[in-house]
Amino acid sequence: MLRVCQRATLRRRISHRPTDSYRQISQSTKLSQKRVVLSGIQPTGIPHLGNYLGALSNWVKLQKTAEPGDTLFFSIVGWHALTLPQDPAVLRSSRDDMLAVLLAIGLDPERSVLFHQDHNSHHVELCWILNCLTSVGKLRRMTTWKSRLATSRNASSETEVDESLLNSGLFTYPVLQAADILVYRATHVPVGEDQQQHIELTRDLAETFNRTFKGEKPLFPLPIYLNAPSKRILSLRDPTSKMSKSSPDTASRILLTDTASQIKSKIRAAVTDSILGVTYDPVSRPGTSNLLTILAACTESNVQDIAGMYATKGHGQLKNDVADAVEELLKGPRSELERIRREKAFLDEVARKGASKAIVYSCATMKDIKQRMGLA
Amino acid sequence: MLRVCQRATLRRRISHRPTDSYRQISQSTKLSQKRVVLSGIQPTGIPHLGNYLGALSNWVKLQKTAEPGDTLFFSIVGWHALTLPQDPAVLRSSRDDMLAVLLAIGLDPERSVLFHQDHNSHHVELCWILNCLTSVGKLRRMTTWKSRLATSRNASSETEVDESLLNSGLFTYPVLQAADILVYRATHVPVGEDQQQHIELTRDLAETFNRTFKGEKPLFPLPIYLNAPSKRILSLRDPTSKMSKSSPDTASRILLTDTASQIKSKIRAAVTDSILGVTYDPVSRPGTSNLLTILAACTESNVQDIAGMYATKGHGQLKNDVADAVEELLKGPRSELERIRREKAFLDEVARKGASKAIVYSCATMKDIKQRMGLA
Repeated sequence: MLRVCQRATLRRRISHRPTDSYRQISQSTKLSQKRVVLSGIQPTGIPHLGNYLGALSNWVKLQKTAEPGDTLFFSIVGWHALTLPQDPAVLRSSRDDMLAVLLAIGLDPERSVLFHQDHNSHHVELCWILNCLTSVGKLRRMTTWKSRLATSRNASSETEVDESLLNSGLFTYPVLQAADILVYRATHVPVGEDQQQHIELTRDLAETFNRTFKGEKPLFPLPIYLNAPSKRILSLRDPTSKMSKSSPDTASRILLTDTASQIKSKIRAAVTDSILGVTYDPVSRPGTSNLLTILAACTESNVQDIAGMYATKGHGQLKNDVADAVEELLKGPRSELERIRREKAFLDEVARKGASKAIVYSCATMKDIKQRMGLA
Repeated sequence: MLRVCQRATLRRRISHRPTDSYRQISQSTKLSQKRVVLSGIQPTGIPHLGNYLGALSNWVKLQKTAEPGDTLFFSIVGWHALTLPQDPAVLRSSRDDMLAVLLAIGLDPERSVLFHQDHNSHHVELCWILNCLTSVGKLRRMTTWKSRLATSRNASSETEVDESLLNSGLFTYPVLQAADILVYRATHVPVGEDQQQHIELTRDLAETFNRTFKGEKPLFPLPIYLNAPSKRILSLRDPTSKMSKSSPDTASRILLTDTASQIKSKIRAAVTDSILGVTYDPVSRPGTSNLLTILAACTESNVQDIAGMYATKGHGQLKNDVADAVEELLKGPRSELERIRREKAFLDEVARKGASKAIVYSCATMKDIKQRMGLA
């Protein structure tokens, strides 16, 4: 494993660098306004390491680095889940599991508003209103639905996906996403790069509304896309594709519930290459580079720095250290998750309170919206 | 004017005929199930005679002929109104006015559930769910949006309407309409013929849901299109087109608020023809035939019977009698409307109570839906 002093050195090093883009944005905007941050995650059950390092751990960082006046909303987006076919029993347990995960990784329901999107009907109310301001042509140019359909059908390419499979929920998905954001008048939205087009649409819709339904001041702020330092974690069995929940080979991913020995065996079996030594070269050495990326992410280090440390070492040493670092990262959340998942009444109470808080904010927005539109 | 005995004779005659298709359906279904009837009207302000004879008076008949176990929902569909541009101040007063109209024409808030659609968010919740079950291709084949756009733009034909004007609210309008119906598990839906295609979609969606999300029994009944005895009332100034709210010539329509002298002067100025005598011939004598249609509708008579009575009379006599019959029909609703419009607090209370009642029904449906889908 990475020796403790090495990790400490790495941590010290990063503490002097502005690696946290959230903190940067927080500093740059705090003079002008208090932030309202919103992000959502689909109830896909227990997340894997890729989900954790890609989005969820960033939410925890956001919570840690937020200014006292910032408001944070983290939503489990059940309405969005319906845009692809779902097994009701699986969806039901996935919704509970995802809330348990948010708590287990360190999101604090007293600090952040954690809630199920489908517990607050204001999202769909505003979605309808925004649908009436969105041209069908604009939605046709949103192409995310193609990749979502392709993924859900295990199609190898978007061109394989037939538009006749498109339902109008998936078609208007970006409008619901805009409503998710605008109903809380969110100012900052941390989402993946593939969602950037949707944030542009959200800004367009906010502007259109502000221009069409004038008041003393514009009703919506124009939300900013918060580019999270994205970590693209690849499959352990096929490092040319992303780590994925839907891959049939369970050894291709590490779940948040995996034990230390499961983690060790999956990392040991990870596909690398037969080239001597360890270098970071995502194109010709994707498997080896993926392990370096994971190690860097787990230890909050720079991947080139990590690669330098292993230049003269072998894959065996790297795999041991990766397995230890992943275990070190996940053991806390895992034991918390194990505990919280059993506490159904507590989860329901957290969900209930979260929804109540969310509704207080969205209710104020909807009241203003309806007033301006002549609906009240 | 039609002499009292003539009108009495006509009334007796119709009482022996099964002219009321609602009563027929009520009788044919009462053995099998209690009816849940739902219909909606857009908040377009004070209705004209065409609206009144075409839809609203049928609602009153429905209420009168309903069996004790039937439940009746009449909704002012504010969400639908947003699919075309609205002036907020006009929309606000139109919503109030339409509720006042429903009360003034005789709908009883103790017997029927009278409510604003936009006071019950379950409509848009179910709309989202149904959107996820509706293919975009199916919506493209719904063509009502073309005529709605054409009307709103005063285009003379649907071919003049550019698809780029289509917003996704108008595009998914039929899905919201399906939600309006299914959220109350309505069994009978009295709407105009142009909406028949939408009722078919509603049945399709109900079937799809029932098949996809099975339970002890199907969640939705398949609603029946209730073909109202439709009276197509034409413009008094241009009897080749329908009486319309948007025509710039106010003499072309009679409003529910028109006084006796306004009614008389508009009917006197109605365009007819210079052929001697009165015959019912909608193709070559549209103006004269329109007056006969109005007289027949006001006196609940058969138009051919009415035409027979005027075979040897002139347009002057016909116009006098039409004006009297319209005044006779509207004077009650008009004075009621005048009174009720001033009682804003009462209207708000009726709206509040109506929404509460509606929500009790829709809440039960949504609970079942969410249970079956895994959202609860």
